[in-house]
Amino acid sequence: MGRWEPNAQARLRQAAMELYAERGFDRTTVAEIAERAGLTERTFFRHFADKREVLFAGSSQLQELLVTSTASAAPEVGPGVAVAAAFEKAAAEYFPPVEYSRQRQRVIDANPALQERELAKLDRVAAALAGALRARGVDGPTAALTGESGVAAFKVAFVRWITDPADRPLLGHVRTAFAGLGDVWAFAPTRN
Amino acid sequence: MGRWEPNAQARLRQAAMELYAERGFDRTTVAEIAERAGLTERTFFRHFADKREVLFAGSSQLQELLVTSTASAAPEVGPGVAVAAAFEKAAAEYFPPVEYSRQRQRVIDANPALQERELAKLDRVAAALAGALRARGVDGPTAALTGESGVAAFKVAFVRWITDPADRPLLGHVRTAFAGLGDVWAFAPTRN
Repeated sequence: MGRWEPNAQARLRQAAMELYAERGFDRTTVAEIAERAGLTERTFFRHFADKREVLFAGSSQLQELLVTSTASAAPEVGPGVAVAAAFEKAAAEYFPPVEYSRQRQRVIDANPALQERELAKLDRVAAALAGALRARGVDGPTAALTGESGVAAFKVAFVRWITDPADRPLLGHVRTAFAGLGDVWAFAPTRN
Repeated sequence: MGRWEPNAQARLRQAAMELYAERGFDRTTVAEIAERAGLTERTFFRHFADKREVLFAGSSQLQELLVTSTASAAPEVGPGVAVAAAFEKAAAEYFPPVEYSRQRQRVIDANPALQERELAKLDRVAAALAGALRARGVDGPTAALTGESGVAAFKVAFVRWITDPADRPLLGHVRTAFAGLGDVWAFAPTRN
């Protein structure tokens, strides 16, 4: 159907981000996004379920990449190393240019409902990582702890990345954050 | 005003939890909660802003307790120890009986909007802990990492507690989770 539309998804995403920034997420319509991108509404809906999904479509892809990567770590690799390596791989290969991530974050920061949506997506990533670890034979509590705290480290790395005045790559921020987990929690544990 | 109402807040909370369990959160009204508790709507609104706050009023108190406790740790105490000790103190002193927490969790699990609200509240706890650590002179990235991953460990401990068939106290689950962070993330870090 229709003509070939080069990079339709990327054009729609860029148009949406510009409009969300200019007039706010709530006051932007799908029709306006399509028009700005020089495409039809029908094309929009071939790529995104709704205008919110323009912001969050990447989360499911990220989750899939992290789960696949965690699952494919060598069998002898422990849960922390497997999850840290998965986030490093995602940081190196998956993320859009930092300027896009900055724009997206400004849109989300301006809208509490989008913030809650973002947190819910990250919570699902943590649960999916825990599932991938359990499939590797990691016990349930350790799998949950590694998934949750791995996502916690990634959240911090992501914020450092998009606020880094030196524009260093995400990968370095991810490595620093995971190394930081080791430093912060290395104190002699009191077990019960 | 009116007669003395012994434990009005606790009675309202218990009545609300019963009704949310029986008919669902969305189909319960403040009038019904007050009636079940044998109190007036006016009394309800002296204790809670709305029916959602019955579930979440505790989060702000928890946050305050954690922040106060983190701030009052001895100056030489590192961020991980300060935050772990704050959660241990909260676990020992603050939480309602496990049966109440189980009921509350069932209500939240049945309602995606309440789940997102819960995640938003926990996100605010992480940010508040980071603020308390920065006030102790901890650098921003480490403070953020400790706040986020401390909350991550607590989430896991909380779930273990309310699903523990042996009904062991929350404190033990919190200690196990924070010790687990040290175990999981103790691998030799690759720094950038």
